[in-house]
Amino acid sequence: MKFKVPSLNKEMGKQVSNYINTLTKPVGSLGKLESLAIELAEMTGEPFPEVSPPGVIVFAADHGITQEGVSAFPQEVTAQMVANMVNGGAAINVFSRQIGAKFKLVDVGVASEVVEEGVIHKKIRKGTANFLTEEAMTKAEAVQAIAIGYEEAKSLIDDGIKCLIVGEVGIGNTTSSSAVLTCLTDTDPAEMVGRGTGISKEQHERKIETVKRAVNNRQPNPQDAIDILSKVGGLEMAAMAGAMLAAAERRIPILLDGFICTVSACIAQLLAPVSSDYMIVSHHSAEPGHTAAINHLEKSPILQLGMRLGEGSGAAVAFPILESAVKMTAEMATFESANVPNKENAKINI
Amino acid sequence: MKFKVPSLNKEMGKQVSNYINTLTKPVGSLGKLESLAIELAEMTGEPFPEVSPPGVIVFAADHGITQEGVSAFPQEVTAQMVANMVNGGAAINVFSRQIGAKFKLVDVGVASEVVEEGVIHKKIRKGTANFLTEEAMTKAEAVQAIAIGYEEAKSLIDDGIKCLIVGEVGIGNTTSSSAVLTCLTDTDPAEMVGRGTGISKEQHERKIETVKRAVNNRQPNPQDAIDILSKVGGLEMAAMAGAMLAAAERRIPILLDGFICTVSACIAQLLAPVSSDYMIVSHHSAEPGHTAAINHLEKSPILQLGMRLGEGSGAAVAFPILESAVKMTAEMATFESANVPNKENAKINI
Repeated sequence: MKFKVPSLNKEMGKQVSNYINTLTKPVGSLGKLESLAIELAEMTGEPFPEVSPPGVIVFAADHGITQEGVSAFPQEVTAQMVANMVNGGAAINVFSRQIGAKFKLVDVGVASEVVEEGVIHKKIRKGTANFLTEEAMTKAEAVQAIAIGYEEAKSLIDDGIKCLIVGEVGIGNTTSSSAVLTCLTDTDPAEMVGRGTGISKEQHERKIETVKRAVNNRQPNPQDAIDILSKVGGLEMAAMAGAMLAAAERRIPILLDGFICTVSACIAQLLAPVSSDYMIVSHHSAEPGHTAAINHLEKSPILQLGMRLGEGSGAAVAFPILESAVKMTAEMATFESANVPNKENAKINI
Repeated sequence: MKFKVPSLNKEMGKQVSNYINTLTKPVGSLGKLESLAIELAEMTGEPFPEVSPPGVIVFAADHGITQEGVSAFPQEVTAQMVANMVNGGAAINVFSRQIGAKFKLVDVGVASEVVEEGVIHKKIRKGTANFLTEEAMTKAEAVQAIAIGYEEAKSLIDDGIKCLIVGEVGIGNTTSSSAVLTCLTDTDPAEMVGRGTGISKEQHERKIETVKRAVNNRQPNPQDAIDILSKVGGLEMAAMAGAMLAAAERRIPILLDGFICTVSACIAQLLAPVSSDYMIVSHHSAEPGHTAAINHLEKSPILQLGMRLGEGSGAAVAFPILESAVKMTAEMATFESANVPNKENAKINI
């Protein structure tokens, strides 16, 4: 799979950085908002980029690894959460409405039958296989999931979204993400495997052991994203990576959510290294593996709110900060336009 | 001055905490949003409180201490920033529009003449006196400034705002805030005096010395808010404290901004100890003194964005997080309403 991601427009970033220093405020005093405004200018190539409306795509899929008892919830909960989400009752629905996002929910591999209207039905298979004992999916299925994610994001971008948020729902997907991240980094699974949706100490130890044994059994090639996905990945993770690549190709900023989303971003980066230049980490999840994933991308998060829900919820909650950053540049007066002397040309009374 | 601030409704907080645990998400997985929702329920006494529309009041005043060369900008900049703000070009205007806030700008003590329509003209005196050599203002003036702040906030609350943000503009006000905080806490001024709007190393040392000498010269009574304000305070700080007290009396949540705002909150707390129960710290400012002020209130900030602009800007940027918290409680489905088994009643397959 080949993706053509353009380079950042660093020159535009410099121009915007200089312009921000002319705004009616002490230099640097808006902190992270200033660096975000510069990053968004580099990504979009626009001095005054827009981020609204954002688009939120949630990909749903199941994981055969739940057979190993790694999750607090049974697999059927995935389909029930999909039903809740299509009815507007999940956290991501609430926050998507708050930020005026265009919202899509895509079934790429829920184990049970999903019949709800309003769900985009793109089921590739009924959940992955138990990757402790066999490959999670075929390489062809991994490629297909990436392509579905790519197309869904592309259609939202054609529809006018200016910023992409991708989320997921799928019981067991923190285990799969931990396995993928173990392949991509040198981190010990014990450091990255979390309590997920709230498992016991015994389940936690089992989860760590399961990840270690699975990676050892499957031996994915750490340089080959499709190999990793097919051996220990998830269908929703592949689709999320595909969606991100569609955005990066079109200079659309990607606001990453928590652990699973950021691991999927690492997969996208492996498929197209420049793609990570279009990614902003929205928040630092309470899932311990998120730290390793963020470090792998060499990013720093905007928010630290101890969230760990997934669905894209952290990204949606952080989105207004991006809006503040672009509005700062677009709407604040300059010292010149406001006829205020700045430090350099002011008659300082000292 | 007497203020009647009601106690928090802890019982409502407990009920909302229990309710949040029935929402369709793993328990605790929305982190800080959950604790904010509980705090807002305790403050308002409502299970599903609203925070919109918020109100933003910016108080402007000058500081005679600028005669000591503690600021990078001359005193005239205060009036110019007021003009910029009434024209909608300041950072707080941008962020107030973003969050749909009702906005007020009040001159309580700008040194130069402020003629702009749209500014609420309540000038008490043309800036404070240089508190290194004399008292900043009389006790009667401090009381008058508190009363003005109180009345301005009360009228916005009568007008329907559901959350109060207070900001300030005033060259030299970090020096005054440092002096006030030195009176209230044991912190060494060297640890809390920052570079303000961007002063040199020499100015920074002079600023620390000025604060130390001024507090030593004036000897304010650390138990007497009016004494502190009159001796080393600012007119805008007194007004901000008054505004907060009007909100606390009416169970309106107060979203604190950075250093000057939080020091004013400490003054409000000294006038009415229970008032700080109605305060939420929006962000951790890059001004070093903010840490001591936050610790004095025993609070923790929502955002860490390295902002240090003042005007209420950090609070306005953080406001959407409060909205997310209240929308979570008001709009998410429960496990029961969504017909999703939660962990307790799910048939766990392990």
